Amino acid sequence: MKFLKVDSIEQAREKMTASLRDVFTKTEYVELAEAAGRCLAEDIYCPEMVPDFRRSTVDGYAVLARDTQGAGESIPVFLDIVEEVAIGQPAVRTLKSGECAYVPTGGMLPDGADAMVMVEYTELFDEKSVAVYSAVSPGSSVVQIGEDAEKGQLLLEKGTRLTAKSIGVLASIGRKQIEVFRPWRLMVISTGDELVLPGEERTACRVYDINTSAICTLAREHGMEVVETVTLRDEEELLEQALRRSLGICDIVVVSGGSSQGKKDMTARLIDQIAAPGVYTHGLALKPGKPTIIGADDASETLLIGLPGHPVAAMMVFELLIVWLQKRMFGEKEKLSIPAVLESNIPGAPGKATCQMVKLTASGSGFTARPVFGKSGLMSTLTQADGYVLLEINQEGLRSGEQVFVHLF
Amino acid sequence: MKFLKVDSIEQAREKMTASLRDVFTKTEYVELAEAAGRCLAEDIYCPEMVPDFRRSTVDGYAVLARDTQGAGESIPVFLDIVEEVAIGQPAVRTLKSGECAYVPTGGMLPDGADAMVMVEYTELFDEKSVAVYSAVSPGSSVVQIGEDAEKGQLLLEKGTRLTAKSIGVLASIGRKQIEVFRPWRLMVISTGDELVLPGEERTACRVYDINTSAICTLAREHGMEVVETVTLRDEEELLEQALRRSLGICDIVVVSGGSSQGKKDMTARLIDQIAAPGVYTHGLALKPGKPTIIGADDASETLLIGLPGHPVAAMMVFELLIVWLQKRMFGEKEKLSIPAVLESNIPGAPGKATCQMVKLTASGSGFTARPVFGKSGLMSTLTQADGYVLLEINQEGLRSGEQVFVHLF
Repeated sequence: MKFLKVDSIEQAREKMTASLRDVFTKTEYVELAEAAGRCLAEDIYCPEMVPDFRRSTVDGYAVLARDTQGAGESIPVFLDIVEEVAIGQPAVRTLKSGECAYVPTGGMLPDGADAMVMVEYTELFDEKSVAVYSAVSPGSSVVQIGEDAEKGQLLLEKGTRLTAKSIGVLASIGRKQIEVFRPWRLMVISTGDELVLPGEERTACRVYDINTSAICTLAREHGMEVVETVTLRDEEELLEQALRRSLGICDIVVVSGGSSQGKKDMTARLIDQIAAPGVYTHGLALKPGKPTIIGADDASETLLIGLPGHPVAAMMVFELLIVWLQKRMFGEKEKLSIPAVLESNIPGAPGKATCQMVKLTASGSGFTARPVFGKSGLMSTLTQADGYVLLEINQEGLRSGEQVFVHLF
Repeated sequence: MKFLKVDSIEQAREKMTASLRDVFTKTEYVELAEAAGRCLAEDIYCPEMVPDFRRSTVDGYAVLARDTQGAGESIPVFLDIVEEVAIGQPAVRTLKSGECAYVPTGGMLPDGADAMVMVEYTELFDEKSVAVYSAVSPGSSVVQIGEDAEKGQLLLEKGTRLTAKSIGVLASIGRKQIEVFRPWRLMVISTGDELVLPGEERTACRVYDINTSAICTLAREHGMEVVETVTLRDEEELLEQALRRSLGICDIVVVSGGSSQGKKDMTARLIDQIAAPGVYTHGLALKPGKPTIIGADDASETLLIGLPGHPVAAMMVFELLIVWLQKRMFGEKEKLSIPAVLESNIPGAPGKATCQMVKLTASGSGFTARPVFGKSGLMSTLTQADGYVLLEINQEGLRSGEQVFVHLF
């Protein structure tokens, strides 16, 4: 092997982080309605008390709790109705002892009142008074000011990937413009004389181009924008042209070529030729994923990455390097991984980390993880595996029965 | 309470399933590049052997394994190079004993050859012959025909939600047009005199409209299409107009109003008025989620649903009914839920199922789940909860220390 600077995952990640410029953490404002899936670039604090008025959680009558003491199914207390509060409108009167006001769910309690009696426990006596058949304590069926969230409270952290829940939080405090990270722009280049595009006729010894579709989908699943895809024959000039063009149009260019040594050498040589400082990682101490190349062009602020040709390896390296890097730069939290019990041994690889795909099966109170092996392992990995287990570089291997965390994939 | 036909979740689901027409399982063809996130409406079988030629997994020489017997670091075997196979090109010669051919990674093995020797274990002797320093056994570094997948093998099941992995599978067999389910078209109506749109100025006692944003996001996260959103004041004519219009433009109309009895009555009455057969579920035996209304209009093939006004309850019911229904109709698999140990008791509710939001924390070899309680519980639920635990209708409650499965949300 002629790899010159083989790095561990950690070394490669450190170098990538150090090489990245501000362009990778640029932000922009989007409308709330367009913000789903984007990554928050600001901490969101509660701008006021929520609620900022005392709110009823039931349809019924606002009362002074002490007025209802002693009330019961057969001994009603009679109160004068002095106001009917409408939803969305302020209560006007201040209740005195002996008085009550109708308040619908979500409505505002009048001053003086300190509890709600559900309408089911009351009966209209005449137009102006109501019989209350239940004693309530102060605070009953009332959400106090600031009870849900206090002014200044941190609601959402920078780095939150916006989902229905967090969009709900932003709506609840009336935010319309949200500061989010600008999506990373990707160019995806696949090279190989053997590649045929899906839908085209495949002649002998050729294979369909899997990486372009798979890497684009993976990138979009993580909120990135694919600005261009190209599938090229293995010709140096074609790849050089594409790489030169990439420097102007994207933040990251991903070249996924065959895994043969000659092709990798060509990609590394071209990156060194057109980019400065050029290649800084030439091989990854990861199984699978060895033929990975990482470099940078400082002038155009572009990250250049050569992925392994095997689609599963290419996807894993994309996940472990580029998706990891985005999480790191945006401050995004790790997704929850699933605890599971290993169904069979996973051998370690000397001097390498191992990324082992596994299939999860529910079993009693948890999951078991079965390694998905296979010499070629393309289809079986893509169709059966639910996620992967990562073995550290100096880890000897994992034994059947051990507990692992499975990263869904 | 005036609910007439309170159903359990199971009863409501059964009625909904029975009421749905073919429009909910219509399919369409999309291009592979646009298929991510869509739900597969056909079983995908392998159309040919993969690979359909014997493929090398290394750069090296195709040999007859028996020719290399006895070769070692100090005792090379000399073989005549009779062909150089190019990637993507068929091998032409049939190897005889004493012959070999150069084959790159991914290239085709010539007939006669039955193993590969990695180039690292060889040395060019002259232009026409190579010294082999390693003995290989038959099949070494070769992927056999059909080894990855056999012709006719089921690769992806109908109901698969297409992700990077499954897009990779479709690309690998050259599929360009994919049959997927047409997305359900949703209209989202939010009603309430107290509602203010995010970005607008909020006056006393009013609250921002959370449900429109949260429900739309949730729907899109599950691949549905939102055709229209409207936020209305609590006026019968406005809601009637919107409901009548919905029958022509969507498959499901979701009305999320306040939870007060009067509003719910109005929604139910209007659905009964404009739709036939109209409301069939009037209240759900679920905490939270009681004020849920479900009806249908057979003529226009529209499902009409009134959700609770509380955003978290509205989202839960949307998930438990509409998302569940889509999974059922499309044959989609359940997402993996996370096993966890309860950190405190969850009380059951007599005669109701309970949907309890929980926060997950990694602890040793797994997770603990802490219930997120709170009278109003809007912000805390939306910001802290990772998912929910579902207690069946006759379940008494769950105790601290019990093992549960958490559905991520």
